[in-house]
Amino acid sequence: MSIDTVLAELKRGTNEILIEEELHDRLKKGKKLRIKAGFDPTAPDLHLGHTVLIHKMKHFQDAGHDVIFLIGDFTATIGDPSGRNVTRKPLSSAEILDNAKTYEAQIYKILDKERTIVEFNSRWMGKKTAADLIALASQITVARILEREDFSQRYQNGHAIALHELLYPVVQGYDSVELQADVELGGSDQKFNLLMGRELQRLYGQAPQVVMTMPLLEGLDGVRKMSKSYDNYIAIDEAAESMFGKLMSISDDLMWRYIELLSLKSLTEIQQWQKFAKEGGNPRDVKVDFAKEIVTRFHSAAEAKKVHEAFVARFSEHQLPSDIEDIEISSTNDTMMICTLLKEANLVPSTSEALRLIHQGGVRIDGERIEDAKHLVPRDVFHVYQVGKRRVARIRWRHA
Amino acid sequence: MSIDTVLAELKRGTNEILIEEELHDRLKKGKKLRIKAGFDPTAPDLHLGHTVLIHKMKHFQDAGHDVIFLIGDFTATIGDPSGRNVTRKPLSSAEILDNAKTYEAQIYKILDKERTIVEFNSRWMGKKTAADLIALASQITVARILEREDFSQRYQNGHAIALHELLYPVVQGYDSVELQADVELGGSDQKFNLLMGRELQRLYGQAPQVVMTMPLLEGLDGVRKMSKSYDNYIAIDEAAESMFGKLMSISDDLMWRYIELLSLKSLTEIQQWQKFAKEGGNPRDVKVDFAKEIVTRFHSAAEAKKVHEAFVARFSEHQLPSDIEDIEISSTNDTMMICTLLKEANLVPSTSEALRLIHQGGVRIDGERIEDAKHLVPRDVFHVYQVGKRRVARIRWRHA
Repeated sequence: MSIDTVLAELKRGTNEILIEEELHDRLKKGKKLRIKAGFDPTAPDLHLGHTVLIHKMKHFQDAGHDVIFLIGDFTATIGDPSGRNVTRKPLSSAEILDNAKTYEAQIYKILDKERTIVEFNSRWMGKKTAADLIALASQITVARILEREDFSQRYQNGHAIALHELLYPVVQGYDSVELQADVELGGSDQKFNLLMGRELQRLYGQAPQVVMTMPLLEGLDGVRKMSKSYDNYIAIDEAAESMFGKLMSISDDLMWRYIELLSLKSLTEIQQWQKFAKEGGNPRDVKVDFAKEIVTRFHSAAEAKKVHEAFVARFSEHQLPSDIEDIEISSTNDTMMICTLLKEANLVPSTSEALRLIHQGGVRIDGERIEDAKHLVPRDVFHVYQVGKRRVARIRWRHA
Repeated sequence: MSIDTVLAELKRGTNEILIEEELHDRLKKGKKLRIKAGFDPTAPDLHLGHTVLIHKMKHFQDAGHDVIFLIGDFTATIGDPSGRNVTRKPLSSAEILDNAKTYEAQIYKILDKERTIVEFNSRWMGKKTAADLIALASQITVARILEREDFSQRYQNGHAIALHELLYPVVQGYDSVELQADVELGGSDQKFNLLMGRELQRLYGQAPQVVMTMPLLEGLDGVRKMSKSYDNYIAIDEAAESMFGKLMSISDDLMWRYIELLSLKSLTEIQQWQKFAKEGGNPRDVKVDFAKEIVTRFHSAAEAKKVHEAFVARFSEHQLPSDIEDIEISSTNDTMMICTLLKEANLVPSTSEALRLIHQGGVRIDGERIEDAKHLVPRDVFHVYQVGKRRVARIRWRHA
């Protein structure tokens, strides 16, 4: 493979590469590169959004480089002793090891376990003295740190920043020095911290790492980032049937985005899919293949086949999810009864008609039959509704 | 002695006390207080300005309290590794011990050695880990630290502040926690750091220390703070003759200021001096007593007597320094020849007259005969000039 082909695969789906020429140069030298990606051991419960980064690690691994799965346990054991941030409780070493194991169980569904280096930054940071940390901090100016967008906003808005928070980017940057990273991967919201690694490596006489940021994956609604709090996510340990159903429910545009960021098919294979759709093929068929790839990865090929068949059986042949229409409604309510919702969405002429259909078993949400006419649907949750034999719609319900 | 008498003595010459009621309350309880004063081990070469603080320690010591002479060696061994501040080179432990010894030789001319506690903050800070320091830093917000005047000015003016500099006030404040200080003394420019001690003690469940700031002593010119770089200082190890001469050269106003801050006479004795001067006594006589007190402290009573006699012999009886006039001149030159200077100050009608007087041995600077007509006097240096038999003047020469 030519350097340009390798580079195209590595660039796939990335948000930004700093500096691309440097990456090209390092690849050209043919040296095995050290790829760093840091993970927070406090949040091991992953959804597909988290795996975007892991896929990029996999691309590097497939190209023969060393990927380092770095668990930032040093700061996690400290937590936020000021008590200002209740979500940042200090973790015990046992908890961190547990979380790391959960991580590993999840990441090895994508990465090759034999060729993945797992590191904990407490290995070097745990040995540092207060004096070492002061010497490290002396390398960076306050103004430089306060450039970080969330810091500058909080500072300007008069929201408290605890002093130790300014040290964390420096610690994270120093990890790159210890690891002698050639490339660091991170979400686009991590760009500042990744650049700190470049600065510190330069100060410690190393060639500064290439920084590669990945976009935040959109959730099932195609608008907001995938997040548990928006209920627009697919968990990695989600049941095969639900995983498949949710993937089948996304719009065609979002499907191509997910394929770019989550599929492990080569760019050539993906180009064939795109050609197929462009020449009149049903994108639904691509979606089925992609959904099966993902379910196979996190469950098995047999499971993927089974849930695909069940899915087809649930929907009538003529109303497979690629034909579904998008409906937007708005309301200030936090929840709505299913009857009201279907009326608001104009899927039924009246709530009494909705009631009648529910009693007949003709209303399904994500393929599941609704039997309770008083069933409450929460706002911001994104579902596919099947009403009677003829109508299937994806309802986006936003705050008015 | 009543609490109020003790308090008056302790308050003498102070700039600010935070909070005076708290000091009053602690004195009332009759408990032996722990008085902290921190010293920078990088600058052991003291002048009288530095001793203002030591005098205040002495006032507390005389009132029966424990004074702690704290040497901030922890940060001194770190220095400023960023290389931004060339004056802040890291010191070795041996250098610090040497400097501490020099300090001790100087401070024990004022303090009672047997009753002075000497501490080094490396004793506790040297044992702290990076994690400990992060936990400590988490107690304080960035906004709080950037309130410090020099930080906020540098930040607003776009001048670099290295990140570790923000940690130093926290370390200094934490020293108060370790020492369980009841009172911390410092120069008025140290107020922010002393208040940090209050905050940290409160966070660690201690009663917050009383903060007492001392003014910066004016130099011999009576205008700028005493400083080597202004050449308006009296060094502690200065020769007795020079020390006496310089003290005799100060204005009467400045004399009362020096007495307030540097004399160890009681307030009652000082009030008697003031009464004497108010009732027509010559302030020169007070100045002689005060100058002898200071020379006695740093040399001996015999030396003080000797230099006093030599001083009287040098000046004619009718032109003792209390009769000297003040002359201000300004010029953009950095140095001036003595002849030009005397002409500029109107002490002679012409430079040739100055030349003639010098050749006759009739020109003295600070009592020393000038023989070189080309003698150069640097700007900003403050001297007493004796010209012929009749004129003695103090020349203040400023930049135009």
